[in-house]
Amino acid sequence: MSQTIAFIGLGNMGGPMAANLVKAGFSVKVFDLVASSVETLVKQGALASASASDAAKDADVVISMLPAGKHVKSLYLADDGLIHQLAKNTLVIDCSTIDAASAQEVGKALEEQGIAFIDAPVSGGTAGATAGTLTFIVGGDAENVARAHPVLSAMGKNIFHAGETGAGQIAKICNNMLLSVLMAGTAEALQMGIDNGLDPKVLSDIMLQSSGRNWTLELYNPCPDVLENVPSSKGYQGGFMVDLMKKDLGLAVDTANKSQSTIPMGSMAQSLYKLHSLAGNGQLDFSSIFKMYSAKQD
Amino acid sequence: MSQTIAFIGLGNMGGPMAANLVKAGFSVKVFDLVASSVETLVKQGALASASASDAAKDADVVISMLPAGKHVKSLYLADDGLIHQLAKNTLVIDCSTIDAASAQEVGKALEEQGIAFIDAPVSGGTAGATAGTLTFIVGGDAENVARAHPVLSAMGKNIFHAGETGAGQIAKICNNMLLSVLMAGTAEALQMGIDNGLDPKVLSDIMLQSSGRNWTLELYNPCPDVLENVPSSKGYQGGFMVDLMKKDLGLAVDTANKSQSTIPMGSMAQSLYKLHSLAGNGQLDFSSIFKMYSAKQD
Amino acid sequence: MSQTIAFIGLGNMGGPMAANLVKAGFSVKVFDLVASSVETLVKQGALASASASDAAKDADVVISMLPAGKHVKSLYLADDGLIHQLAKNTLVIDCSTIDAASAQEVGKALEEQGIAFIDAPVSGGTAGATAGTLTFIVGGDAENVARAHPVLSAMGKNIFHAGETGAGQIAKICNNMLLSVLMAGTAEALQMGIDNGLDPKVLSDIMLQSSGRNWTLELYNPCPDVLENVPSSKGYQGGFMVDLMKKDLGLAVDTANKSQSTIPMGSMAQSLYKLHSLAGNGQLDFSSIFKMYSAKQD
Amino acid sequence: MSQTIAFIGLGNMGGPMAANLVKAGFSVKVFDLVASSVETLVKQGALASASASDAAKDADVVISMLPAGKHVKSLYLADDGLIHQLAKNTLVIDCSTIDAASAQEVGKALEEQGIAFIDAPVSGGTAGATAGTLTFIVGGDAENVARAHPVLSAMGKNIFHAGETGAGQIAKICNNMLLSVLMAGTAEALQMGIDNGLDPKVLSDIMLQSSGRNWTLELYNPCPDVLENVPSSKGYQGGFMVDLMKKDLGLAVDTANKSQSTIPMGSMAQSLYKLHSLAGNGQLDFSSIFKMYSAKQD
Repeated sequence: MSQTIAFIGLGNMGGPMAANLVKAGFSVKVFDLVASSVETLVKQGALASASASDAAKDADVVISMLPAGKHVKSLYLADDGLIHQLAKNTLVIDCSTIDAASAQEVGKALEEQGIAFIDAPVSGGTAGATAGTLTFIVGGDAENVARAHPVLSAMGKNIFHAGETGAGQIAKICNNMLLSVLMAGTAEALQMGIDNGLDPKVLSDIMLQSSGRNWTLELYNPCPDVLENVPSSKGYQGGFMVDLMKKDLGLAVDTANKSQSTIPMGSMAQSLYKLHSLAGNGQLDFSSIFKMYSAKQD
Repeated sequence: MSQTIAFIGLGNMGGPMAANLVKAGFSVKVFDLVASSVETLVKQGALASASASDAAKDADVVISMLPAGKHVKSLYLADDGLIHQLAKNTLVIDCSTIDAASAQEVGKALEEQGIAFIDAPVSGGTAGATAGTLTFIVGGDAENVARAHPVLSAMGKNIFHAGETGAGQIAKICNNMLLSVLMAGTAEALQMGIDNGLDPKVLSDIMLQSSGRNWTLELYNPCPDVLENVPSSKGYQGGFMVDLMKKDLGLAVDTANKSQSTIPMGSMAQSLYKLHSLAGNGQLDFSSIFKMYSAKQD
Repeated sequence: MSQTIAFIGLGNMGGPMAANLVKAGFSVKVFDLVASSVETLVKQGALASASASDAAKDADVVISMLPAGKHVKSLYLADDGLIHQLAKNTLVIDCSTIDAASAQEVGKALEEQGIAFIDAPVSGGTAGATAGTLTFIVGGDAENVARAHPVLSAMGKNIFHAGETGAGQIAKICNNMLLSVLMAGTAEALQMGIDNGLDPKVLSDIMLQSSGRNWTLELYNPCPDVLENVPSSKGYQGGFMVDLMKKDLGLAVDTANKSQSTIPMGSMAQSLYKLHSLAGNGQLDFSSIFKMYSAKQD
Repeated sequence: MSQTIAFIGLGNMGGPMAANLVKAGFSVKVFDLVASSVETLVKQGALASASASDAAKDADVVISMLPAGKHVKSLYLADDGLIHQLAKNTLVIDCSTIDAASAQEVGKALEEQGIAFIDAPVSGGTAGATAGTLTFIVGGDAENVARAHPVLSAMGKNIFHAGETGAGQIAKICNNMLLSVLMAGTAEALQMGIDNGLDPKVLSDIMLQSSGRNWTLELYNPCPDVLENVPSSKGYQGGFMVDLMKKDLGLAVDTANKSQSTIPMGSMAQSLYKLHSLAGNGQLDFSSIFKMYSAKQD
C-alpha cells in the first residue's frame, strides 16, 4: 500500500471515505475548502494540504467527491486546474454524482493528456461511507477500473462496471430514478390499502411475496412502524434526504432531455419530490413522500 | 375429501382451477354458459350441471370465477340468485377479481342468510392455474378462511389473509397497481440507459444489486433478451395481457376514487396502459409497455 | 307565471336560485332538511313545505339541487320517492352536479312513468346564483328543454342543450376537467416565468395575446395582484372551492373509467387537487393551486 | 430605410422574414450554409454573402435565425465569431428559439463589447413569416427594443417586451408549454365527450362559452371537422409540427430544471408529445395529439 492518494472534498460522504483509505494503509493527502473538515481527517491520520493542487502533487491517485458537474470541471479543467499538473498515468477517480456529460468532458480532456480517468459515483449513503460498504458504479476503461479496484475496495464492498466513461453516472441515475418510482409507487399503494381498511404490515407482507415486491418495500418501508430501524419509523430522520433525491431526479430529467428518452414515471416522481420539498420537507428522508399521501386535512 | 364443490365459471383461469380440484379428489359439479367448457371439464372427471343453480344444489362449497362485479352480484343476488337456494353454512369462495364494493355487498347479503363468504382473488396467471401454484389473496373471517384452506390448497401454493370481507380484492388491486408502476418505471429506466449507450443486461444486473431492485427486473425483465423464457424474449406473447392490466388499473382508480386516495403514479400507469392498448397492443403481455419507450420514429 | 314550482335543496346554490324564481313571479314551494334554510326563503316570498313530498304536491315543475347522485336517486326513486307521487307530465329539472349514470337512471325511470326529466347542472358559482346569471348545461329531449326555458331563464342567462338525458352532466364534467387543466397549467407557466425573473403581469399580458390564452388567464388569474377582484388577489377567498373541484374531478375520472377514455392531463390535475386538499387547502378557491408551485422552502 | 441588415439563417422561417425586410426597403445581405436558400433570397432582391462574416461587415443590424443555442453561440462567440468583428453600437437581434441561458451568455458577451443585443423569438409559423404577421417576444434593454422596432415591424405585427435579456426566450417557452397543456387537455376533454355520446361541435360550443374556453378550442380545434381550415380538418397537415412542440417542451423542461420550477402539467405534456412522436407522428401538426386519445384498437 505504498500508493499516495489525494482526496478532494471532505463533506458528509467524502470525509468518512477518506478515513477508510487511511485505515486501509494508504497515504492520504486531503483538501477541502472547509478547514475544519481537513482537521477532522488529520486527526484520523491523513495529511493536510493547503490546496487541491498541493494535495495532488506527486499523488498516484486523485479522488474527488464534489457537489456538481461545475465543481468537478473547475477542479480539473480550469486555468489552474489539475490537468495542467498531474503526471501522465495518474489515476483520477471522480466519485461525485454529476451529469454524465460533465464526466465525459473531464474524462476525455484528461485522457488526451495521458491521465487515466474513471467516474465512480456511489450509493449507500453516509452510513455506507462510514462502514466502508458503499456501492461504486463505475464508468471507464476496464484496465483503469481494475487499477482502481484496491482503492475502491477500501471504501466499499460492491463495484460494478457499467461501461465506458460516463456510464457510471448514467447507471446510477437510471437506478435512482427507478428508486424514486418504487418509493412513490409503494407509498401510494400502501396508503390506498390503509384508506380501505387494510393493515399496512399485512399488506406489505402480501406484496413482498407477490409481484409488488421491490427494494423499498423490503428494506425501506415508507409507512411508519412496519419495519424497525428504517427512517419512517424514526420520524423520517437520517437516510437519504428528499433534496438529494430531488437533485438526482434533476440529473435524470436532464439526461433524458439530452438523449430524447421518454420518462413519464420519472417525471411524475420528480414533480412529487419537488412539491414535497416545496412544502418544507427537503431535509427529511426520501421515504417521507408517504406523508404527502397520508396527510389528513384539518 | 367427501366435500362437494360447485364451480361456476370455467374460463382460462376457472377451467384449470376446477380440474385441479378434481385431481385432488373433490366431487366437483361445474357450470359455464359455454357448453364446450363444461364438456372439457367433464372429460377430466367433473360432473356437468345444467345451470349454476343445479351445480350449487347440495354443494358444501361454491366457487365462482367470473369477469366482473355485475356477474358476481347477479349469480348470487339476482331474483333467481343462489342466495335464495344455498343452505346455511355453505361456504362461498369468490375467486373473481372484482371491485371490493361488490364483494362486500355480496358477502354481507350472504352472511345475513347464514352463508359463509370469502373473497379470494388470485394471481399467477393461466400457468399458475394449470400448475396449481396460484396465489390467493383472501378477505373474510379467519374461521372461514381456515375452512377454505384445503380447497384453496388444491389450486394454489400461497394463501394470504388480507383482512375482512373485500380485503382480498383491495390487497390484490394495491399489489397490481404497484406492479404496473414497477413495470413502467423499470422499462423507462432501462430504455434511458440504452439511449445513453448502456448494455441493458449490465444495467439490469447493477440495478438488481442496488436500490432499483424489484420483481419485474428480477423475474420479468421487459427488455428483450435480458432474461430467457420471459414474454419480452418471446415477442411479448403469453403472460399477463395488457388489457387485463388495464382492467385492474380501472379497478384501482375506481377504488381510489371511492376512498379519496391519491394515486399519481397509479394514474400515470393507467394512462400509459390505456394509450398502449389504444395503439393496438391490448393482447400482448403487459411487459410490452417497453415498446412504447423504445419505438423509433421512421 | 301561474306555474307552481317545487324547489328541493336550498344550499349555497339552491337558496338564491329559488329566490330568483320567487322574484320572477313563480309560486315556489321550498324544502330543505335544514329548517333555517327554508325560513330564509320564506322571508323572500317562498312557501314552506314540511317535506319534499309536500313541496312537490300539485307542482307543475320540480327542481332539485342536491350534493350527489345518491341523494337525487333517493329523492325520486326511493320507496317513498317522488316517482310514486308526481302527476304525468310534471317537468323535473335536476340542477345537481352528479354522475351521468345516476342522471340517466333517474331520467329513464321517471319518463317511463310519463314524467318529463332534464338534467341541468349549472356553472357560475354562488355569485351567479344570486345574480341570476348562471349557465345551465342541459341534457334531455328538445321539447322538455324548451318547456324548461322560462324557468331556467329566471335563474340564469345562458342555456346550452348538450344532448340527450345525462348529456348535461357529461358536458359540464368535460368542461370542468378542462378548466382544472387550464388553471394548473396557467399557474405553473406563470410561476416558471416568475422563477426566471419575469413580471407575472407582463407574462400574463403576452400569453393573453398569444396561443396560451385561456379563460383562467383572462378572467381568473391565479397569481395574486395580476387581476383585481379575483380570488387570488383576495387571499383565495370566495370563488369555487378546491374541494368542489376535487368532487368534479372525481366525477370526471369516474366517467372516463366507465367510457374507457384516456385522460392523462385530467388525472394529473386530479392528483394535484387531491394533494392540495390534503395539505389543508380544501376551503380555498381553486386558483390557490398556484400556491403549490410558488411555496418556498424555509 | 438606409439601414443595412445582415440576415443569417434562411430556413423555412428565416427566408420569408428576410424577404419581408427587402420588401420594406432595407438593404439586406444574406447568408446560409445552403447555397440555394441564398439564391432564392437574391432573386427577391437581397445581396448574397459568402459567409456570415461577410454579411455582417458594415451592417447596422445583424439578425440571426438558427436552430439551437449552440449555433447561436458559435456564430457570435466562436474564435472566428462576429463578436470580434462587429462595430460598437451594432444592433444584434437573435430571432432563434433557444434556451435562455445561451441567449443571456451571448447577450452579455456582446454588450461587454459595446454591441447591442436583444433576443426576439417569434411565433406565428411559416404562414406568419410569409405574411409578415409574426409575433415577436423580446428580451433586452428598452432602448434597444425601441431601436429594433422598425425592423421587427417589417416582419411582424405584434411586438411584446418581456423583460431583460433572455426574457423573450423565457416568455415564449412559458407560452408554448402552456399551449401544449391547452391542446392536450382540450383533446382529451373532447374525446371523453365523444366517448359518452356528445357531438364534438356541440361540446366545443358549450366549452367556448364556459370556463373551458382557450385558444386551441377557439382557433385550432384538434377534433376533425369542428372548425374549417385548421390542420385537424386537413389530415393534420401544415401548422406547427409535433417535433417542433417537442423541441419547445425540451427547452421548457430544461428551463424548469435550472430554475427549480415544478411543472407537472408541462412534464405530462412533454411525455405525451414524446410518445406521440415515437409512434411516428413527428411531422404532423401538433393538434394531432387528438389521435392518441381517439385511436381505436383493432
